[in-house]
Amino acid sequence: MRPYVIVNTAMSADGKLSTRERRQVKISGAQDFNRVDRLKAGSDAVMVGIGTVLADNPSLTVKSEECRNNRLARGTSLHPVRIVVDSHARTPPDAKILHKEEGKRVIAISKRADPAKVRELEKFATVIVTGNDRVDLAEMLEELGRMKIRRVMVEGGGTLIAGLVTAGLVDEIYTFVGNIIIGGKDAPTLADGPGFVKESEFCRLVLLEARRIEDGILLHWKVEHRQ
Amino acid sequence: MRPYVIVNTAMSADGKLSTRERRQVKISGAQDFNRVDRLKAGSDAVMVGIGTVLADNPSLTVKSEECRNNRLARGTSLHPVRIVVDSHARTPPDAKILHKEEGKRVIAISKRADPAKVRELEKFATVIVTGNDRVDLAEMLEELGRMKIRRVMVEGGGTLIAGLVTAGLVDEIYTFVGNIIIGGKDAPTLADGPGFVKESEFCRLVLLEARRIEDGILLHWKVEHRQ
Ligand SMILES: NC(=O)c1ccc[n+]([C@@H]2O[C@H](COP(=O)([O-])OP(=O)(O)OC[C@H]3O[C@@H](n4cnc5c(N)ncnc54)[C@H](OP(=O)(O)O)[C@@H]3O)[C@@H](O)[C@H]2O)c1
Ligand SMILES: NC(=O)c1ccc[n+]([C@@H]2O[C@H](COP(=O)([O-])OP(=O)(O)OC[C@H]3O[C@@H](n4cnc5c(N)ncnc54)[C@H](OP(=O)(O)O)[C@@H]3O)[C@@H](O)[C@H]2O)c1
Repeated sequence: MRPYVIVNTAMSADGKLSTRERRQVKISGAQDFNRVDRLKAGSDAVMVGIGTVLADNPSLTVKSEECRNNRLARGTSLHPVRIVVDSHARTPPDAKILHKEEGKRVIAISKRADPAKVRELEKFATVIVTGNDRVDLAEMLEELGRMKIRRVMVEGGGTLIAGLVTAGLVDEIYTFVGNIIIGGKDAPTLADGPGFVKESEFCRLVLLEARRIEDGILLHWKVEHRQ
Repeated sequence: MRPYVIVNTAMSADGKLSTRERRQVKISGAQDFNRVDRLKAGSDAVMVGIGTVLADNPSLTVKSEECRNNRLARGTSLHPVRIVVDSHARTPPDAKILHKEEGKRVIAISKRADPAKVRELEKFATVIVTGNDRVDLAEMLEELGRMKIRRVMVEGGGTLIAGLVTAGLVDEIYTFVGNIIIGGKDAPTLADGPGFVKESEFCRLVLLEARRIEDGILLHWKVEHRQ
């Protein structure tokens, strides 16, 4: 059984996750940061696409002492399993996600990945192989389920989110909408990829909650799965 | 003095105004439609970019009997002035905006527009010329101010909105966020164009109101103008 998948991102009022230069930008504040830290701490794994690793080099660790202690008290690892979706094993061997603090890492690759690069990454991470050219997201999640991962938080970026949404693999979406306009037809958005064309294909959501946080608003959506 | 400028659009939860094929899609419902009709009826003019005219062929008229009667009771024209921002006079002479019902039309063009096309459009609309290659939006708004237009509602699309935002010419933004994901890195968003790169350039907003309407949420932002 695949894990429950929760997407969490911060976007500008015009739907952008960053600038056209794909530089990480501050969209939310300290209060939302703490919410995200708690959401992360409540997950078995945190997932990002290789685009985000290359652009932001995140460590994806749980930051607050309180959340860390809660995890340890529950008998789980200090940090959720950190997962990179990376068809061609392009994760740099010195990426922060592989080295910052303790904990399990998973790199999901495709059959096309260069074996030399894969061997290098295997020093730091468990490697999952699915798909010929590109990671098969459904198969990957099944494999994560077999690894006892029940709840995955996806931090982005927009290409990975679009892939998961299109494959019907997302259960909830949190979007913090910040009080800025970034603009740019080439800036990353919450859901990139090819996108849907027909209205019957659109992913349908239910708005569970809208809550003001600092200068923005947090929208919490549930995905309506097709029967 | 330039008119007060209010942007109003409907976007998907991932910030898209339509699909990558730029086909008009249903994002909001009847209740939001009525709100938009009232906002339109309360404006002296409604403005769109040529991209929207070519994609959607809108008529931009006030639809409800009540709003029409209110306008007539106030002694204003039945419909707000309809404005197309169209540097190269590409508005098709049979566009609905030029023919549907009575009322004044304005086409804002640049000096580069083909004189033959301009002559054709002058049969149906007042033509304003600003900018060499592209409409100079600030000058155009000054000219609209001289025409006693005090309040303009901008219906989109994302390229025109981005141009206005970048030039510091927008005062308020209403975005209805619908309960769908459209996706697509090439789909139009609320603010396209080149976009901002530095955080100091970002357009800053203040969230005035967030209100659930049917299955989505209406966000009402005020633009913070730089001193
Ligand atoms: N504001 C926020 O909350 C936030 C959060 C995260 C990221 N970001 C921003 O987002 C940007 C990065 O986003 P991105 O869209 O470029 O990259 P991304 O979504 O992080 O990664 C996309 C990559 O994942 C890989 N992938 C493998 N299998 C896939 C599949 N089946 N479907 C989709 N993707 C698959 C693909 O590369 P391969 O095929 O080569 O593996 C794809 O290019 C950065 O600018 C970052 O700052 C913002
Ligand atoms: N969901 C909604 O609420 C909503 C509302 C409206 C539109 N839409 C969608 O938006 C899409 C169309 O948007 P779009 O971005 O392609 O077109 P657009 O914003 O309607 O028009 C853009 C065009 O305006 C002209 N323009 C002239 N001077 C400009 C300036 N200084 N700055 C910016 N633009 C200037 C440019 O063409 P020239 O230089 O050739 O004149 C530009 O390409 C369609 O898919 C439509 O369905 C959705």
